[in-house]
Amino acid sequence: MLTVFSPDHAQHHARAELIDGQMLPAVEVPARAEQVLTAVRAAGLGAVVEPDPDGPADRAALERVHEPRYLDFLEGAHRQWLAEGHDGDALPLCWPARGLQGPEPEAIDGRLGYWSFDAGTPVTSGTWAAATAAARCARTAALVVAEGVERLAFALCRPPGHHAYADQMGGYCFLNNAAVAAQVLRDSGAGRVVVLDVDYHHGNGTQGIFWARDDVLTLSIHADPRQEYPYFAGYASEVGPSGRNRNFPLPSGTAIDAWAEALEAALGEVRAFGADALVVPLGVDTYEGDPISRFRLTTSDFPGVGAAIGALGLPTVVTMEGGYAVDALGANVAAFLTGLAAAHVAGGP
Amino acid sequence: MLTVFSPDHAQHHARAELIDGQMLPAVEVPARAEQVLTAVRAAGLGAVVEPDPDGPADRAALERVHEPRYLDFLEGAHRQWLAEGHDGDALPLCWPARGLQGPEPEAIDGRLGYWSFDAGTPVTSGTWAAATAAARCARTAALVVAEGVERLAFALCRPPGHHAYADQMGGYCFLNNAAVAAQVLRDSGAGRVVVLDVDYHHGNGTQGIFWARDDVLTLSIHADPRQEYPYFAGYASEVGPSGRNRNFPLPSGTAIDAWAEALEAALGEVRAFGADALVVPLGVDTYEGDPISRFRLTTSDFPGVGAAIGALGLPTVVTMEGGYAVDALGANVAAFLTGLAAAHVAGGP
Repeated sequence: MLTVFSPDHAQHHARAELIDGQMLPAVEVPARAEQVLTAVRAAGLGAVVEPDPDGPADRAALERVHEPRYLDFLEGAHRQWLAEGHDGDALPLCWPARGLQGPEPEAIDGRLGYWSFDAGTPVTSGTWAAATAAARCARTAALVVAEGVERLAFALCRPPGHHAYADQMGGYCFLNNAAVAAQVLRDSGAGRVVVLDVDYHHGNGTQGIFWARDDVLTLSIHADPRQEYPYFAGYASEVGPSGRNRNFPLPSGTAIDAWAEALEAALGEVRAFGADALVVPLGVDTYEGDPISRFRLTTSDFPGVGAAIGALGLPTVVTMEGGYAVDALGANVAAFLTGLAAAHVAGGP
Repeated sequence: MLTVFSPDHAQHHARAELIDGQMLPAVEVPARAEQVLTAVRAAGLGAVVEPDPDGPADRAALERVHEPRYLDFLEGAHRQWLAEGHDGDALPLCWPARGLQGPEPEAIDGRLGYWSFDAGTPVTSGTWAAATAAARCARTAALVVAEGVERLAFALCRPPGHHAYADQMGGYCFLNNAAVAAQVLRDSGAGRVVVLDVDYHHGNGTQGIFWARDDVLTLSIHADPRQEYPYFAGYASEVGPSGRNRNFPLPSGTAIDAWAEALEAALGEVRAFGADALVVPLGVDTYEGDPISRFRLTTSDFPGVGAAIGALGLPTVVTMEGGYAVDALGANVAAFLTGLAAAHVAGGP
């Protein structure tokens, strides 16, 4: 297995975020990626490389899954924030909700709301550099798998991506790394690609990006949106116009038995679809010790989760998503990847 | 002229609000209403009374312009916020923006987003009491005018209301006091009612509430939404399905000459409509010294603004909306009302 990592992730370091009605220290911090990197190295999971150099292919890959105007906004947002007299991190203020349907405003406060769906995703001076580096990790990992150089690759992305829509940031996510990987696999010859999201939170951005597509099946196992972020997507009833989306919402307190049942159902969907390649947005905020989540998976559960997915034997790209118990994050990710790699070797063609 | 005021406004006192990406001391504070009350008394503008006692008529009046489920949410929101383990003021976190269209969630974080469109409108333990008292002021003022007891009444409402939709809070607003007043006038026999909003910010909630109605004409003179809150509504192109809405967006830096031209155009619409009664959501954040706004009206401009509206000679209810230069707020409101009352006597039937 190859891991793709860029130190540029550290350029995105939000000061604070809106939690419980207050601005509190951010939970999506640079130490997360460093912890995972250390654990991946310690676990002997294979080489760690930097992504391909920055170049025109990055923009092209982003435009396959994101609206160009959104990319332009994101690249210039913090500069405009400063130019209009603000300082620090940029946060949106209001949103084009029901009844508010005007065009994109000109002022940065309005543009931030237009291109987002939450108030907890600060844009910093380094956000664009970090987010594009993360997407580059996903692109590089997908290319390596698509070309057959590796059967498994781990894109150690930060900031995460699975909440980002084609045209909206949210949930600490700016660019949808998993969607970039899935599209690279499609564009490299895989006829049918599955995205199997195992983060605690619904992969609403990925669902949105591939909503009307019949060549990419999106699956997500997550906390019930009636109770948990992102609240307005993730219901089992959301199957998409061509039936290529499946959600598996689970109640607060779910432990491995019920979680694994949902995984089995999702794996059945993967097999029935006849997937040629797989992308796994990996959040380990399903962990019992996660500070903002309420499932009860343990570190010793994650090898089995990885193994069940690895047993599919598919060319697979894993993208790093959530997980905020920083001290346990590396161990949990390494446990998943170790199980994935072992089963993949055993179960592959 | 009669002024209707409730001391219950002080029960809504937000700790802080999201401004410029930070939680800063709220600008919509109880001192605002107290300053206006003092100035109204000092100006000898007539009696100041408390609104009708709290009763079933309040809920009925609210349900004429608000969705009952939204009212239920607002009444219980802060209790649920506390019951779910939060403290302090409640703020929403994410919104049902493009692509997120699920039903109302169960958790308070989700419900707050479902029933709002911004992150700058904290719900406190006293918000419901204050907001319903403000709406009661508006209802009482409208009844007094509708019954012919007074030709002019000033509802000294706080919190303000003109940003509140039938089903969404935002912009410091929870219940749309001006809409309540307009509906009371309609229900009391006025066949055609005009709402003429002169706040610096677009009266988007009022526009939304009466959008499809042909018996209430909504007019708003305000800062261009490309540059200013609420950003996603307030364009001149928004005329409504029956042409009963007119917006007059003006650029940053607008002073009285250009502002008065827009007012003349709006007054022409009032006359052409053949209004039987008028509601004026009054914001004096058009004032040159307002800390969050960028027009350049002076205190000495406000009597003329009031006089131009008073010269219509219509039964009129004024509702207090924005204005955040607290030290000048009373003088500006009293200036407007003095001009209004003087011209009304001169111009009335």
